[in-house]
Amino acid sequence: MTIFKAIMDKTLLPFFNPKGIVLVGASQNPNKLGFGLAQNLIRSGFPGAVQFVNPKGGTLFGHEIHSNVASTPDPVDLGILLIPAEFVAESLVACGKRGIHAAIIASGGFRETGEQGAELERSCLKIAQEYFIRVIGPNCIGLLDTHLPLDATFLPPPGPTPGDVAFISHSGAICAAVIDWARGQGFGLSRLVSLGNQADVSECDVLEPVAEDPHTQVVTLYLEGISNGRRFVEVAGQVTQEKPIVALKVGRFASSQQAVSSHTGALAGEESAYNAAFQKAGVLRADTSEELFDWARALAWCPPSPGRNVAVLTNAGGPGVTAADAIEANGLHLAQISETTQAELRKLLPAAASLKNPIDMLAGASPEQYAGCLSILLNDSDVDSCLVILPPPPMHSAGSVARSLIPVINLARKPVVVALMGERMIQEAVEFFRAARVPEYRFPERAASALSILAQRADFLAQPKSQPVSIDKNQALVASLLRSQKPGFLPNEVVHQILAAYKIPELKMELAKSPEEAVALAEGMSFPVALKVASEDIVHKSDVGGVLLNLMNPEAVREGFKTIFQNASHAQPDARILGVQVQQMAPAGQEVIAGTVQDQQFGAVLMFGSGGVEVEGLRDVVFSLAPLSEQDAESLLKRSWAGRKLGGYRNIPAVNQSAVLDVLYRVGQLAADHPRLTEIEINPLRVNAQGAVAIDTRIRLS
Amino acid sequence: MTIFKAIMDKTLLPFFNPKGIVLVGASQNPNKLGFGLAQNLIRSGFPGAVQFVNPKGGTLFGHEIHSNVASTPDPVDLGILLIPAEFVAESLVACGKRGIHAAIIASGGFRETGEQGAELERSCLKIAQEYFIRVIGPNCIGLLDTHLPLDATFLPPPGPTPGDVAFISHSGAICAAVIDWARGQGFGLSRLVSLGNQADVSECDVLEPVAEDPHTQVVTLYLEGISNGRRFVEVAGQVTQEKPIVALKVGRFASSQQAVSSHTGALAGEESAYNAAFQKAGVLRADTSEELFDWARALAWCPPSPGRNVAVLTNAGGPGVTAADAIEANGLHLAQISETTQAELRKLLPAAASLKNPIDMLAGASPEQYAGCLSILLNDSDVDSCLVILPPPPMHSAGSVARSLIPVINLARKPVVVALMGERMIQEAVEFFRAARVPEYRFPERAASALSILAQRADFLAQPKSQPVSIDKNQALVASLLRSQKPGFLPNEVVHQILAAYKIPELKMELAKSPEEAVALAEGMSFPVALKVASEDIVHKSDVGGVLLNLMNPEAVREGFKTIFQNASHAQPDARILGVQVQQMAPAGQEVIAGTVQDQQFGAVLMFGSGGVEVEGLRDVVFSLAPLSEQDAESLLKRSWAGRKLGGYRNIPAVNQSAVLDVLYRVGQLAADHPRLTEIEINPLRVNAQGAVAIDTRIRLS
Repeated sequence: MTIFKAIMDKTLLPFFNPKGIVLVGASQNPNKLGFGLAQNLIRSGFPGAVQFVNPKGGTLFGHEIHSNVASTPDPVDLGILLIPAEFVAESLVACGKRGIHAAIIASGGFRETGEQGAELERSCLKIAQEYFIRVIGPNCIGLLDTHLPLDATFLPPPGPTPGDVAFISHSGAICAAVIDWARGQGFGLSRLVSLGNQADVSECDVLEPVAEDPHTQVVTLYLEGISNGRRFVEVAGQVTQEKPIVALKVGRFASSQQAVSSHTGALAGEESAYNAAFQKAGVLRADTSEELFDWARALAWCPPSPGRNVAVLTNAGGPGVTAADAIEANGLHLAQISETTQAELRKLLPAAASLKNPIDMLAGASPEQYAGCLSILLNDSDVDSCLVILPPPPMHSAGSVARSLIPVINLARKPVVVALMGERMIQEAVEFFRAARVPEYRFPERAASALSILAQRADFLAQPKSQPVSIDKNQALVASLLRSQKPGFLPNEVVHQILAAYKIPELKMELAKSPEEAVALAEGMSFPVALKVASEDIVHKSDVGGVLLNLMNPEAVREGFKTIFQNASHAQPDARILGVQVQQMAPAGQEVIAGTVQDQQFGAVLMFGSGGVEVEGLRDVVFSLAPLSEQDAESLLKRSWAGRKLGGYRNIPAVNQSAVLDVLYRVGQLAADHPRLTEIEINPLRVNAQGAVAIDTRIRLS
Repeated sequence: MTIFKAIMDKTLLPFFNPKGIVLVGASQNPNKLGFGLAQNLIRSGFPGAVQFVNPKGGTLFGHEIHSNVASTPDPVDLGILLIPAEFVAESLVACGKRGIHAAIIASGGFRETGEQGAELERSCLKIAQEYFIRVIGPNCIGLLDTHLPLDATFLPPPGPTPGDVAFISHSGAICAAVIDWARGQGFGLSRLVSLGNQADVSECDVLEPVAEDPHTQVVTLYLEGISNGRRFVEVAGQVTQEKPIVALKVGRFASSQQAVSSHTGALAGEESAYNAAFQKAGVLRADTSEELFDWARALAWCPPSPGRNVAVLTNAGGPGVTAADAIEANGLHLAQISETTQAELRKLLPAAASLKNPIDMLAGASPEQYAGCLSILLNDSDVDSCLVILPPPPMHSAGSVARSLIPVINLARKPVVVALMGERMIQEAVEFFRAARVPEYRFPERAASALSILAQRADFLAQPKSQPVSIDKNQALVASLLRSQKPGFLPNEVVHQILAAYKIPELKMELAKSPEEAVALAEGMSFPVALKVASEDIVHKSDVGGVLLNLMNPEAVREGFKTIFQNASHAQPDARILGVQVQQMAPAGQEVIAGTVQDQQFGAVLMFGSGGVEVEGLRDVVFSLAPLSEQDAESLLKRSWAGRKLGGYRNIPAVNQSAVLDVLYRVGQLAADHPRLTEIEINPLRVNAQGAVAIDTRIRLS
């Protein structure tokens, strides 16, 4: 964990390893949160010093209650404030003067209550900065470390069981549920941090100190947003090299849609950016709360899965088929069981047993058969992981099967998870497995999902570390071009200059201001040509009859110019029309879209997929943070039909994939270099065997 | 339930309401299944007579063990056979002679063990038919009815709690798990039937008798397949008018792919047919075991949801956001809370509470506030259902909140489900809610999924009963045409005659056997024309260079004929080429695909979606059983992008939707009328404002 030590922010250390704690707002009244927090501090067995402060004085749990912070004895390095909001500022000052540089403000009544509270929060933060105090909260339930041990929350007991799953949360209420869920699902917590309003310390700040804890095997996050997207990607990306992170990001549907005018803008919502960011950082995104903890257990207790071939060991057919379905549904596969392995299994099993995967030992399967068969399966080099199914067995107790399996599982270097199907009749087995840190699930589908995440984790670890692909470009030219432009869609000639500066190939196109000029330009190219209305005000040109294709001769161009002018002025009378663009007809080929937006959290996000007018209908689009690494770009191609089709399909010939990749690198870099380019959209990018060429490009400046 | 009485098979009555049971194979040895079954029969408190049979004689549980079936006293009308497979046949004879016409063969050792067992099974079935004995099994764990009561299974105790969820299963092993799951999830079972090998009685047969039980509120199915697809759709479709059916159909990925040659064939796997069948019958398909029972509880205990607008009532923000996400992810929406309702809520809640949905009462929410706010929300006519969130509440016990909520929920005519987040700290509340038949879930996502299924159920009930749309057709002509055809793809001229007989419009097309003939035919149409190779052996014509489009004059047609001939002979030297089809160029328009396959279980299945060569890549296809009702056809359009696009999109003009519907009715009817037509595929069907026309049609005969 040297990586953490090197990058960690030392000012946060008192939160996670305090020498002495001052609780301001300790209360003798058992109905007050200040009583609960005091009780948790004492009961948790925190090995450092604990001081209570309350102007009323007295004693609590055998400790003197000091009347103020100033009079608390050494050592004190962490303040916990659980007092009405209006007294927080003066307590912070007192902490600062006492030499305390870390404070948890558990009190509510700040930003979450409205503008007045926000003002109060800002003034507290200002004081904290003045006295160099780092602040967690306000409006949080505190933090805990089950191994130190330290319980600095005001949650009613019992606290969590010590364990290896860390939890960082934007919601305090979820913490109480999580501690209780963890108990129900049989795993323990290492550290838990409730971040509250994040006036100072955010999820980014605590990721490293929480992951650095040697007891923590996996970090789980409940996120309502991310304060600094790029920093999160960087920090989380470092943590995930060492320990897995699983995130439940909520507020998926609440995000207000900005006004957008391109396909890319319409499709690239906040959630696409979050997904792209999580992918880049190797953060595993859970869809539901249940998945978050199902995965956390497996990640904490099992090695990553060397591959996706799963052996299913069962004593009954039906549950085996259910598991097989779930395995495929989760992107895993049933392992092929080798002849040798089958021969070994045969020695242990009755003749009627099925040796093909799922391996069905039949209803009479004994504890010894379970253990013996599992051993044999784990030795098969084509088997990457095992899913053991244990319905209430008709002949033997589930507990005895568990006892027999556990030594085999604990010795295994491949993941083994157990589907313990039932409730009361398998309770003894549940307890055994949990004590042995073997992930068990009530339903085979959840067990399969856990194996799948272990394979995803292994994929991430195996992936080469990716750097953005560097391209030759003239960044300064674009920067200078943009200085003189006003916000909105950039005029075509500026777009051409920008594309040229980043060497993004496009079709030859020139502006004609009269029918005659159009004819002259067309004759300078080669027929057929296309005409397109030139107007910054008309976004979807073909929608207004502003595009004519395949014009074969001068006469058609002359007439076409007039038609387009009429159509466009008719459809949008107030549009300023600069003329008509004359363009070479594009070569035949496949059509894709490449676009970017600037996400508020994560900056430049690139979209790739099936191009044309139906982009939003077909929704064959995928996203990546920009600029792109080789892995990013190849993943875009793999994940979309448009990308896979580049390799050819039926009578659609294969085209130049590397030309597409090159355009993606360049467009991504362009957006990343110039955050004022809020939307870039090449649609279509036409690709054939020779290369890729932008047919229509729109760029919007903020 | 008069509908059931009318259609029910009377020969099955002894299984579900026996007067007297004979257990053949009762055993005094507690290690034998014959002991367990005898014990369950006695302990369950079955009110009818119970007779034990075993040649060894003796007594068991105070009952005499008869040495044979013949000597058992009246009344006896149901035999249960739990003896080695080789003795089953003679016991069936004995039952028949004793006047018993219903038997559960619990014994294994039949078809599931191989060919010898299958032979034994066939001979037993023959005997059963001879003596008019209906048979459940063999190789099953029996059946039970918790209300009669009757436990005729050999599962180890405890049996299930009496309740309102019925379970019908192809897997015996799942039954033990289900009983135990039900206990863990706090719902009871009404009837449970394990069907085993289904030598006689199948899932179709027992659907009605199980649903007819007044204690059963919902029927759950574990299916590994369906014995008679169309009958299942009919029977299940009748049951679902009265009571919901939820099915977990496994073996999704195991299905062997037949060799297929069309897009439709490649995409229309068994699973598409199952989904289409379930949709038609109103059967709700669960994706996982957990979902099956999460839904069952809600369907058993709540009214259908009048709509999709959900109010979320919470005492904390985080869980509220999580629930809001899950609501949208499940196709539901957050209800708009009216001003009036907000005003009423305001009277009960602190000023800082959030009255916008999710309604956040804040952490201090009392039992009275929970109940009062829920009442108010249920009275809002824009609220269709409520999701109440209850994390371990910091101030009050979850149990006291539950007690306060239950009377409001029980009086409500709208569904209310509860997300009880946690485990031990909410245990008391769990017990209260379960006793009051209020569905509660550990995670808000599962609660949202339950509300969604209640909305789906309501949608199904509200949907007008659908009849296939009748069309004018010449069915006899097609039948007579097919009689003289050999299997494989039908020649073009036959395809034309078939389409004409069902009035499916297609482009004018004629066969030319020489370049000159092609020119003459083209001149008889109007230029431009298209040429296509005519060969039954060439399936994907454009793949071999067998298609030329837009030929403008006689010379192009003459040369085109030669080119196609060369291309085709070169690509497929052994193909029999009949000539070249000359076709009018199709009018411009949208392109869709309409195809059918004959599913082994369900017969004709129609596929509709985005047409062209990329059908399989884009996968914008949806399925319905054929022939189609109006609802079926409209649903196809709604569920696919190709269908929605018919109404126009951006610069793609709207086209004649009813022409598409008409073709779908006709193609569906054609496939349904003639099961020998294994694949029909119109791709593309070109559609413009005037109408729809088949451009290329292939029909395969078995």
